Amino acid sequence: MPESNLSIGQYLIRRLQDYGIGHVFGIPGDYVLSFYTMLEESPLEAIGCTREDCAGFAADGYARVHGMGALCVTYCVGGLSVCNSIAGAYAEKSPVVMITGSPGLGERVNNPLLHHMVRNFRTQHDVFEKLCVAGAELDDPATAFHEIDRVLAACKRFSRPVYLEIPRDQVRVVPHDAPRFFAPELRSDRRALAEAVDEAARRIEQARQPVLLLGVELHRFNLQDSALRLAEASGIPMAATMLGKGVVGEHHPLYMGLYEGAMGHEKVTKFIESSDCVVMLGTFMTDINLGIFTAELDVADCIYATSEQLRIRHHHYHDVLLKDFIEELAARKLHRTSPLPPAPTDWNKEPFVLRPDDALTITRLVDRLDEQLQDETIVVADIGDSLFASTELTTHGRSEFISPAYYTSMGFATPAALGASVARPNARVVAIVGDGAFQMTGMELSSLVRRKAPVVVIVIDNGGYGTERLLHPGEYRFNDIPAWNYSKLPEVLGGGTGYRAATEGQFDEALNAAWADLSGPSIIHATIPRDDASRALQRLGERMQQNVMGG
Amino acid sequence: MPESNLSIGQYLIRRLQDYGIGHVFGIPGDYVLSFYTMLEESPLEAIGCTREDCAGFAADGYARVHGMGALCVTYCVGGLSVCNSIAGAYAEKSPVVMITGSPGLGERVNNPLLHHMVRNFRTQHDVFEKLCVAGAELDDPATAFHEIDRVLAACKRFSRPVYLEIPRDQVRVVPHDAPRFFAPELRSDRRALAEAVDEAARRIEQARQPVLLLGVELHRFNLQDSALRLAEASGIPMAATMLGKGVVGEHHPLYMGLYEGAMGHEKVTKFIESSDCVVMLGTFMTDINLGIFTAELDVADCIYATSEQLRIRHHHYHDVLLKDFIEELAARKLHRTSPLPPAPTDWNKEPFVLRPDDALTITRLVDRLDEQLQDETIVVADIGDSLFASTELTTHGRSEFISPAYYTSMGFATPAALGASVARPNARVVAIVGDGAFQMTGMELSSLVRRKAPVVVIVIDNGGYGTERLLHPGEYRFNDIPAWNYSKLPEVLGGGTGYRAATEGQFDEALNAAWADLSGPSIIHATIPRDDASRALQRLGERMQQNVMGG
Repeated sequence: MPESNLSIGQYLIRRLQDYGIGHVFGIPGDYVLSFYTMLEESPLEAIGCTREDCAGFAADGYARVHGMGALCVTYCVGGLSVCNSIAGAYAEKSPVVMITGSPGLGERVNNPLLHHMVRNFRTQHDVFEKLCVAGAELDDPATAFHEIDRVLAACKRFSRPVYLEIPRDQVRVVPHDAPRFFAPELRSDRRALAEAVDEAARRIEQARQPVLLLGVELHRFNLQDSALRLAEASGIPMAATMLGKGVVGEHHPLYMGLYEGAMGHEKVTKFIESSDCVVMLGTFMTDINLGIFTAELDVADCIYATSEQLRIRHHHYHDVLLKDFIEELAARKLHRTSPLPPAPTDWNKEPFVLRPDDALTITRLVDRLDEQLQDETIVVADIGDSLFASTELTTHGRSEFISPAYYTSMGFATPAALGASVARPNARVVAIVGDGAFQMTGMELSSLVRRKAPVVVIVIDNGGYGTERLLHPGEYRFNDIPAWNYSKLPEVLGGGTGYRAATEGQFDEALNAAWADLSGPSIIHATIPRDDASRALQRLGERMQQNVMGG
Repeated sequence: MPESNLSIGQYLIRRLQDYGIGHVFGIPGDYVLSFYTMLEESPLEAIGCTREDCAGFAADGYARVHGMGALCVTYCVGGLSVCNSIAGAYAEKSPVVMITGSPGLGERVNNPLLHHMVRNFRTQHDVFEKLCVAGAELDDPATAFHEIDRVLAACKRFSRPVYLEIPRDQVRVVPHDAPRFFAPELRSDRRALAEAVDEAARRIEQARQPVLLLGVELHRFNLQDSALRLAEASGIPMAATMLGKGVVGEHHPLYMGLYEGAMGHEKVTKFIESSDCVVMLGTFMTDINLGIFTAELDVADCIYATSEQLRIRHHHYHDVLLKDFIEELAARKLHRTSPLPPAPTDWNKEPFVLRPDDALTITRLVDRLDEQLQDETIVVADIGDSLFASTELTTHGRSEFISPAYYTSMGFATPAALGASVARPNARVVAIVGDGAFQMTGMELSSLVRRKAPVVVIVIDNGGYGTERLLHPGEYRFNDIPAWNYSKLPEVLGGGTGYRAATEGQFDEALNAAWADLSGPSIIHATIPRDDASRALQRLGERMQQNVMGG
């Protein structure tokens, strides 16, 4: 059908496809039923979730793997239920399109009190202005196509969530004359770019010990290969931040591991902090990413390039695109005058030797899991020690590591694993999630059962909010949560397989069985001692205790 | 301890107690751990929930029963997860205090990217300005006490949610000099009041068939007794709106039932719509409340008094308080010149006769449940047919009926039942919830298990979003949801008892057993035919179908 004959709803569906979106997560409701009906008749697949916030996390996980994601929910009761998921996507630059229905324009005459309304018809849009990088209410056929184009372009350009609201009586309206939006082409200021690349090249060539510190933006903006070319052309070693874990395969000979300040591995920390030229590419300078600000990086030794800014030492270049900067720098044949000192890039861990009767610990669980990872594995880590301990896993090949390591919202992993498995059905997806986080959103396992998706969900049960116990030692009731028999959930959900493991041997058996089972999801209830914690979490706890009590 | 020695956190705790709050629902997190620690050491009880939005619904349910409720969550990941619950409390005027931690003021220097941050430090407060009637960031010891007083006073006065944010380094700060807030005393304009009461009295006296239409504000502002005095002194019959169901015991001889326009009982509709003086007291003029605007009420025949306005026919009185208006009107000895025609107040339903082998339907389920209700029962209805069918239940004595009948957010009932049972531990609480709604928040059953609360949760399973099927007929996949074995949840949760019922006999047995069991919660999985619907829902569906498709 030519675009000039499309209705507003049909145009939106076509443009979502143009951006490569094949699936829309969400829950229907009366204000969005007409658009849902159109979705069901379109090539897009609508994927129902148990709750709207889960749909938000699923769309986020899908976006991280696939490049852009979408969710569709009803007005206010649906929309206001995804604030936290969208906020997380904003904070961590995940490009998610939030679509919502709303009362028809024809119903709004005389300002009646319609169900699902909060303060006035604008309330939901007002809220999402705070949480999205762009948004529009498609309340005028003359501008609707233009607005859809503008908002979707912003989603892609900034890699952040956007908001589109369709009053239900506008979905099937065919605009008479619909001006299109033409996004201004983004270009670097050529002379600023040349000067910046010159300066950066010179600094790298002259440095005694340059190093690349890779961040998640390389993944978001599809710049991993460019960064690799830069590293390989000049033999510069690389580290990554926690959020950027997996942006390059961790078996790469130039890769030395995660840099997390005082929280991380000593040899990596020492190499980075003794460097006289740290080239940070697409890195978020956040607290946890930098080991709760224990990073000892001197700005005078840093080149800091992101999608938002370029800083060399203490001066800034404006209008230099991250992509251009990395690619031009990689294209230079950097002439280093002195050899680099060897970086700690030995990734041959000691082989894991099972101690079948030992009580399971989180560190040993992760060591065992590490053996299982294949080239097409996606690991989704929830927060707390599910994240910190999992940073010891080794990604390789096309495997990926997804986590909310900056925004750190509990309950991300199970629904995000749904999104990841929909985005890449041939990959093996593993979610690692604490008991507290699982109690928030773990019932999304139900959608995995429905799709027969062979996702492996590992619930780490230490009987409560373990990170908080470490941050604020003492016996507080509020850190204890009810004990669930997680492995019995398949009986409730009518599918999937449950396992229990409290020893290394039991975990090994469960993981082997789960891995061999492609018929649907598996859930492994892994019990660890109440006070068990990975080395990284212990160090984090020591650092954060003081702040927690307010100074 | 004298107030002058209290810290900001201690002062807040004391003031919550002054307002009668004994329990705070929520989930801890690092930005609010110091306040949580203070809570645990205080006379207030902190009640952990599985998810923050459930804590919001629980606080709302508690507030509706108890007069004011509170929740406490961490910054952004916690706070932004309760937007929908707080929005519902705003829409339906439930007085909920939302307390949240935030990064310490000392941590904010140089604007670092701290975990849980979205756009800037203000983002969460910005969002809740749209959803609360008042709010404050307690970032200055000199004004903190004043701000706490001001915000809590607004919560009470407007019966709507408020927002209090405490940076974590302010919790233990003791202000040197803390000016207090003195709420201006609310007074009616005496002359406007007198004129309004004169006019209303005259209209009621001269009317052929006056009637009172009672709304939920009578309950929120504790004016039920005044309204009853008005009715009884003059023998004026009463009806209630759906949101106001239960504001007077439904066995009262002057009570005729719910008025829902074309959706409701014909005899009631006819009586109200043929009245020449409908006195609406504390009524929300919302779509569902008025039978999707099928109400045929002529403004020229109405007196409309709420906490926000007073309108008689087409003119408005300003500065007349609802309480003063009702009480002064009740104090008048109204002299009616002619007798009232008899109103349809016959509440002797036909006795329920069990047909044990018949397949269960929602209407028969509600009829059976109606027999069970006692003087101290609280019924919490979720939305959809759980609400519409339940309007046929008869409240009496101190029993109450709680539902989100205006905002209609799915998933309200189970966590709100937790709140109601905490607020009134000696009442029997029954939650009626659809399968779709239960899949959103039903795992809050876990908190009922932990508290051994004998709440009866009835899950009405019709295999999907039944209301939507009715609003928009046709076979759409998006209305189908996975089948759970709800009655097996006690095995996962380690407590409570599950029942299944697909016939009237099975439901009868299950309800009897659940009612007799005071050891903990019961969950009854009640299967009804996929296309079953109460009479009210069928009528609603007919009315709403046209709007749903945007025309």
